[in-house]
Amino acid sequence: MNETGYLRHVLACNPPVKERFVPWYVENQVVGWLRPALVEKLAHRPDVFEIDHAAICLRTDLKSFAARSEALEDVVAWLAEKDWITPPMGEPYPVTPAGREAALCVMDRSAAAYFGVRAFGQHLNGYVRKDDGIHMWLGRRARDRLIFPGCLDNMVAGGLPWGISPEENLVKECAEEAGMTPQQARRAVPVGLVSYNRIAERGYRPDVLYCYDMELSPDFEPQNTDGEVESFSLLPLEEVARLVRDTDEFKLNCNLVIMDFLLRHGYLAPEHEEYLDLATGLRRPMDAGLSVRKQYTET
Amino acid sequence: MNETGYLRHVLACNPPVKERFVPWYVENQVVGWLRPALVEKLAHRPDVFEIDHAAICLRTDLKSFAARSEALEDVVAWLAEKDWITPPMGEPYPVTPAGREAALCVMDRSAAAYFGVRAFGQHLNGYVRKDDGIHMWLGRRARDRLIFPGCLDNMVAGGLPWGISPEENLVKECAEEAGMTPQQARRAVPVGLVSYNRIAERGYRPDVLYCYDMELSPDFEPQNTDGEVESFSLLPLEEVARLVRDTDEFKLNCNLVIMDFLLRHGYLAPEHEEYLDLATGLRRPMDAGLSVRKQYTET
Repeated sequence: MNETGYLRHVLACNPPVKERFVPWYVENQVVGWLRPALVEKLAHRPDVFEIDHAAICLRTDLKSFAARSEALEDVVAWLAEKDWITPPMGEPYPVTPAGREAALCVMDRSAAAYFGVRAFGQHLNGYVRKDDGIHMWLGRRARDRLIFPGCLDNMVAGGLPWGISPEENLVKECAEEAGMTPQQARRAVPVGLVSYNRIAERGYRPDVLYCYDMELSPDFEPQNTDGEVESFSLLPLEEVARLVRDTDEFKLNCNLVIMDFLLRHGYLAPEHEEYLDLATGLRRPMDAGLSVRKQYTET
Repeated sequence: MNETGYLRHVLACNPPVKERFVPWYVENQVVGWLRPALVEKLAHRPDVFEIDHAAICLRTDLKSFAARSEALEDVVAWLAEKDWITPPMGEPYPVTPAGREAALCVMDRSAAAYFGVRAFGQHLNGYVRKDDGIHMWLGRRARDRLIFPGCLDNMVAGGLPWGISPEENLVKECAEEAGMTPQQARRAVPVGLVSYNRIAERGYRPDVLYCYDMELSPDFEPQNTDGEVESFSLLPLEEVARLVRDTDEFKLNCNLVIMDFLLRHGYLAPEHEEYLDLATGLRRPMDAGLSVRKQYTET
């Protein structure tokens, strides 16, 4: 992997899959991917799952959203009790073959990570237009955070649980992370998404980050209220781009959000040698590199 | 297929592949996809191609950009003389496994369409911010045009040949299609791309359209100078979105360019049921639905 350049971050967020994952079906649609070792454990739960060599399926007699969610809650408690997964966080996440609104049931956030379920998040680019161009607000993550302590981060970023609209959740995150009023927060403009498929300790992690832009007045200054951010700084976009391109200072997925910003605001142009690979690489389908696909052959 | 909705245009631009295409390799990288019937004809040219049951390869002893391009020019003239392809247009197009800058040689635009080579284009969204929101300039294509006569089109759109920079080509297109000065044209902001893979009469057609936004003053009015546009009109973005969603008035690929605009400007939000499928569907890799990919299996 190159030590500088933009595309290396896309590759880091979408590593080659060097182990086998078993597709998980709900209502005949793939909603996740599990390690074989977890599938073996779930073979002890024929009341909830049907398993063959190639797939694990939620029982089709679990016919409603509620019935499926209850069965999964029971299984998750059982797995946690056996110490096979980390304890539930009490935060329901959608289990979906497609977008968030197409969820077929929910399961605990912590357990979802083992089931290779798509996770949704929201990242906000806070920026100021000055005479010398765009400047972007960045957060520096607190040193005591479990993940990427001390790394650079987007001004506002967080996970998107079930049961709250993206708009309302963003208002909440903007208050906690940057001290914004709901009125300020609602000025955020949804501008697309980035998606990628990590391999984490707990399993396959297909992530979707909804991206938002917010143009701020020069006198606005973000104030962290939840202790997750050590400090904020406002940097020229050229310097932000350099930090992405030449360093590993950012929390990994923030690099993708900023590269998407650079593409949308004309900072990166079609003349750039990585342009096409970046544009397509920032929007990976959930099963990229996993699913079996066959070339059409004449019959 | 639904008769309304945004996603149907993504599906129309990326139809399922129901015939076999043979991958074309240059320097061990796939640069195109050919119908088997054309491959059979090219078997008569062992001076240029090596062919087996699964692939067609440009001879590896053609070592330079110039040598490869000359060999292809000769083959294209031979194919056209036999009446197996339409006559060359005299416009060289890049032959590339990735972005435009990574081209390994060039071949005539007309012939490239039979060889399943990626084609690059540029589309410009010309818009005006008014008190009641964004309004967008649309062109109505001349009735005598070969492709999509009388359909709606982006304000400026055209193919991007080899040997001219994207920036300079856009200046040329802005002058021809909308009567803009170079100074005006250079205010266009590159904002990303859409990519899709059509099946056309001549063959597999992976297209990349570089997208540009240009905010215009309320007194600007586009003037067509090359006869390709019958008229222009300035419509509220809601009406433009409705035309995309509920009608087939637009030239097919313009729908994708406008949906990308709607995503980037917050007109479509994550709450929309097609959001995720649209965002990923607008950026398809060249070989989507074609290439053989294998699931990882433990050894």
